[in-house]
Amino acid sequence: MTDLSQELAQLERDIQILKDIEAIRNVKHKYFRCVDTANMAELKELLHPDVRVHFIGGTYEWTLDGRDEYVETLAKNFNTMTVAQHNGHHPEITVQSETEATGIWYLHDIFWNMKFKACTTGTALYRDKYRKNGEGRWQIVESTYERIYEILEQPVEPPGLTVHMLGRTGRPAPSRSDKK
Amino acid sequence: MTDLSQELAQLERDIQILKDIEAIRNVKHKYFRCVDTANMAELKELLHPDVRVHFIGGTYEWTLDGRDEYVETLAKNFNTMTVAQHNGHHPEITVQSETEATGIWYLHDIFWNMKFKACTTGTALYRDKYRKNGEGRWQIVESTYERIYEILEQPVEPPGLTVHMLGRTGRPAPSRSDKK
Amino acid sequence: MTDLSQELAQLERDIQILKDIEAIRNVKHKYFRCVDTANMAELKELLHPDVRVHFIGGTYEWTLDGRDEYVETLAKNFNTMTVAQHNGHHPEITVQSETEATGIWYLHDIFWNMKFKACTTGTALYRDKYRKNGEGRWQIVESTYERIYEILEQPVEPPGLTVHMLGRTGRPAPSRSDKK
Repeated sequence: MTDLSQELAQLERDIQILKDIEAIRNVKHKYFRCVDTANMAELKELLHPDVRVHFIGGTYEWTLDGRDEYVETLAKNFNTMTVAQHNGHHPEITVQSETEATGIWYLHDIFWNMKFKACTTGTALYRDKYRKNGEGRWQIVESTYERIYEILEQPVEPPGLTVHMLGRTGRPAPSRSDKK
Repeated sequence: MTDLSQELAQLERDIQILKDIEAIRNVKHKYFRCVDTANMAELKELLHPDVRVHFIGGTYEWTLDGRDEYVETLAKNFNTMTVAQHNGHHPEITVQSETEATGIWYLHDIFWNMKFKACTTGTALYRDKYRKNGEGRWQIVESTYERIYEILEQPVEPPGLTVHMLGRTGRPAPSRSDKK
Repeated sequence: MTDLSQELAQLERDIQILKDIEAIRNVKHKYFRCVDTANMAELKELLHPDVRVHFIGGTYEWTLDGRDEYVETLAKNFNTMTVAQHNGHHPEITVQSETEATGIWYLHDIFWNMKFKACTTGTALYRDKYRKNGEGRWQIVESTYERIYEILEQPVEPPGLTVHMLGRTGRPAPSRSDKK
C-alpha cells in the first residue's frame, strides 16, 4: 500500500465520521419534529426495533421495551388534548465504530395536557445510543433522560391557542383517565 | 482515470456537501440573529433577490415576493415597540445539487408588540429552499412555515424589560395602526 | 509534489476545518450542560487558563480574568437556591488558523434565584474566541455577550419544582447577601 493510498484511507474514515454525525443529528431532529406533530409513520423509521427507553421525570417514569411499545405510548400521549414542544439542543455525538454511536442532548420541553389542566415544563439530559442498520441508516437503539429541572402547573387554564396542529394530527384523547 | 483519482473525486464531492451544509446552517443562523436585532444590512446579503415567502400563522399570513418586499416588511414589523426572539432548531438540510438545497427547521418564537399589548408565542416548521449564487454564497430563495401551535395573549402588560436592543436598533414604530 | 498529493493536502485542510468546527461546537455544548448542572470539574477542562470574560446584562456585569476566577464565580452563582437554563443556539464558528477560531452564539436563558425571589430571562449574543491547546483540545479563551433583551421579575413566587438537580449538585447558597 502506497503512502498516498494510506492517506486516502485515513481521509475516508474522517469523512465517514463527519457524515455519520450529520446523519445521527438528523435522526434526532426528525424525532422531535415527528413527536410534536404526531407523525408516527415517519417516527417509526427512526427507531431500532429493539429500542429501549428510560425517561425519569418528576411526576412520571417511562420504561419501554421495543419500537412498538414506544410508538404506541407516544401516540397515546400526544393526543388531541395536548400541546407539545420538545426541542433538543447541544448535541454531543460520539461515533464509536462504523455502526455504533452515542449522543447527549439538552432537552427543553413544554407539554400541556388540557384534559388534566396540567402544564409540565423543564429541561433534561438525554443519553442515547444509535445503531446503523443493514441498509446504512442510523436509528435510536437506546434513549434515556434525567431531568435538570421540572415544573408542574396544575390546575392551569388552557392556553389561548390560535393554532393547534395536534388537535387534528393527534389520536383522539381517551375518555378514560390516562396519565402521561 | 486511475482508481486513486476516482476515489479522490468522490471524497471531494463528500466534503463539498459537508461544507455546503455548514454554510447553509450559517445563513439561517445569521438570519435569526439579524431579524431579532433589526440588522437589515446584513440580513439582505442572506436573501436571494427573487426570494419568495409564505408564512402561515394563526392570526396573520405573509405572502411576499422578492428581497426588497421581504426586508421592508421585516423592518416595519421589528420596530422599536417590539421585542423579538426567533430561534431555529433541528435543521434538516438536504443538498440536492451543487447550487440547490432544501431545509426544514423547527422555529420557536416569542414576539411582543407593545403598541398592541400583544404577545404571540409558538412553534412552526420552516420548509426552505437555498441557492448558491455566482459568487459561491448560499442564499434563501424560498421560505415557508406552518405553525405547530400558536398562542396569542392580548391585552398583556408590557414585559419588565431591563434591556431592549430593538428599542434602539429598530425602525421607529409607526403612528398609524399597522399589524404584524 | 504531484497534482494528486496537492489535491490530497487541500482535502486534508478542508476536513480538519470541519473537524475543528465540530469540536468547538462540542466545547460550548458541554459548557452549557456543565453550568446548568454545576459540573465544575468537567467545566474547567473547557476553559483556557487565561480565559477572559465580559458579560453585560441589564442588572449585572461580569468582568472576569482567568479560569480560576470564572469557575469560582459560576460555582458561587449556580448554587442550591437557583434554577438555571442556558441554551446556546445558532452557532457561527469561523476557524481562523490551526489553533484559533471565533464563534457567535444566540443565548436563551432563564435563571431563578429563589433566595432573592428573582427570575431573569432573555437572550444575548455571545462573541467568543477559542484556542487549541498543546494537547489538541479546543478551549474557550474569550467569552463576551451583549443582551438582545432581558426581563427581570421580582419579587416572584418560587417555581413549582418537581425536579431540581442544582438543589443537590450546586454549592450551598451563601447566607450573606451575594448577588448574581
